[in-house]
Amino acid sequence: MSIDDRALAPMIDHTLLKPEAVPAQIERLCEEALQHGFAAVCVNGAWVSLAARLLSGSDVAVAAVTGFPLGAGTSTAKAFEAGDAVAGGAAEVDVVINVGALRAGDGSLVEAEVRAVVEAVGAGVPVKVILETALLTDEEKVRGCRLAVASGAAFVKTSTGFGPGGATEEDVALLRRTVGPDVGVKAAGGIRTREQAEAMIAAGANRLGTSTSVQIVQGAGNLAPCRVGRARPPAADGKPYVKE
Amino acid sequence: MSIDDRALAPMIDHTLLKPEAVPAQIERLCEEALQHGFAAVCVNGAWVSLAARLLSGSDVAVAAVTGFPLGAGTSTAKAFEAGDAVAGGAAEVDVVINVGALRAGDGSLVEAEVRAVVEAVGAGVPVKVILETALLTDEEKVRGCRLAVASGAAFVKTSTGFGPGGATEEDVALLRRTVGPDVGVKAAGGIRTREQAEAMIAAGANRLGTSTSVQIVQGAGNLAPCRVGRARPPAADGKPYVKE
Repeated sequence: MSIDDRALAPMIDHTLLKPEAVPAQIERLCEEALQHGFAAVCVNGAWVSLAARLLSGSDVAVAAVTGFPLGAGTSTAKAFEAGDAVAGGAAEVDVVINVGALRAGDGSLVEAEVRAVVEAVGAGVPVKVILETALLTDEEKVRGCRLAVASGAAFVKTSTGFGPGGATEEDVALLRRTVGPDVGVKAAGGIRTREQAEAMIAAGANRLGTSTSVQIVQGAGNLAPCRVGRARPPAADGKPYVKE
Repeated sequence: MSIDDRALAPMIDHTLLKPEAVPAQIERLCEEALQHGFAAVCVNGAWVSLAARLLSGSDVAVAAVTGFPLGAGTSTAKAFEAGDAVAGGAAEVDVVINVGALRAGDGSLVEAEVRAVVEAVGAGVPVKVILETALLTDEEKVRGCRLAVASGAAFVKTSTGFGPGGATEEDVALLRRTVGPDVGVKAAGGIRTREQAEAMIAAGANRLGTSTSVQIVQGAGNLAPCRVGRARPPAADGKPYVKE
């Protein structure tokens, strides 16, 4: 499978979530997103209004992360943060599921929380629910997908990029099988090369989160040995702050 | 320098911040804190009310993390989350500074944000401002300390435990020199052994955040080779989710 650059770019959330990122880096992220026609920039809440101003009037959305990356805040705080991001100009919200509650079998907490976030952002703002698949069994991944979809999530998403592992083809395929064709699947975490990006799409993803978007649409991901060497497999690069 | 167990325990925030932690682990954390007389348990927001119920009437406080671990939410969201934690029973709040804003020289954002958090939690709730020192130059660490103190922080704290490095003796000493004797210094991140704990206190810390608190007060930290091998130096263990 090979995908045209013009088809690939609108599937990419151009992502910068490192805590040390400064406004100048957010500005460059937005410029690159405009230049290449990415779906969105994916940023932390503090930079949403800056990005929204820079992308105003364009087709590039601002996606804000919420409860990120641990997902272990209260439902009240996560819903508030999501609504705050939309007030600041976010058009999409990527929220981390309460992993501990999911693992403990507390589906009602998970479901009510996702619903609270969906309600806080309002109609027309897609909510992507991050499962952090590397921390879950396959059964928990399936359960997380079902709870997210039942609560109005527009996408399920594999990973934060800050966990012990990123997106895998197996997980993307499992998520796609579980949610069916009408809900989005976003693959994120450790996607560094064109080859990886195409593999994720082949496995069922219709959105990708990556910080190496420019290289990926230029097909250059595989031509930079030091980058490939550092980044694959995702869990082995030893960097607590994965460069998403 | 050698410290008595009974003097050491009340300096320790017994910490469990892994996203995959389940309620049973929070319950055990609280039991251990009661048994050993730790200063606090340090938990994610979702578990504050559970911990507060279990520790009700005791001398063990609940410390809630906020804007954790990236510190890159909006000031509004961080202040809301801090107030929400206090409403849920938190008696202390550990908030991560906006690292990017600090690095970019936006001191007014940092100062206003810490002040908003201090006001949101109200009088009598100490706010610990986490600098994430591994991402900062010494000059930025000093500036972060001064902004935090000017805004009413009760403590400055080295690290989240999720960053590229944890507490070092040099950083603890720098923080102590900067804030003087009347503001707290909390060392956190990578503290696994009694030897490390005592070194942090010798360097100027008056509070420690660690998940190996029980071993530390029992002086057993140095007797478990596999644990020491995994954890020292903190930045080299290659685990994105440091077990704090």
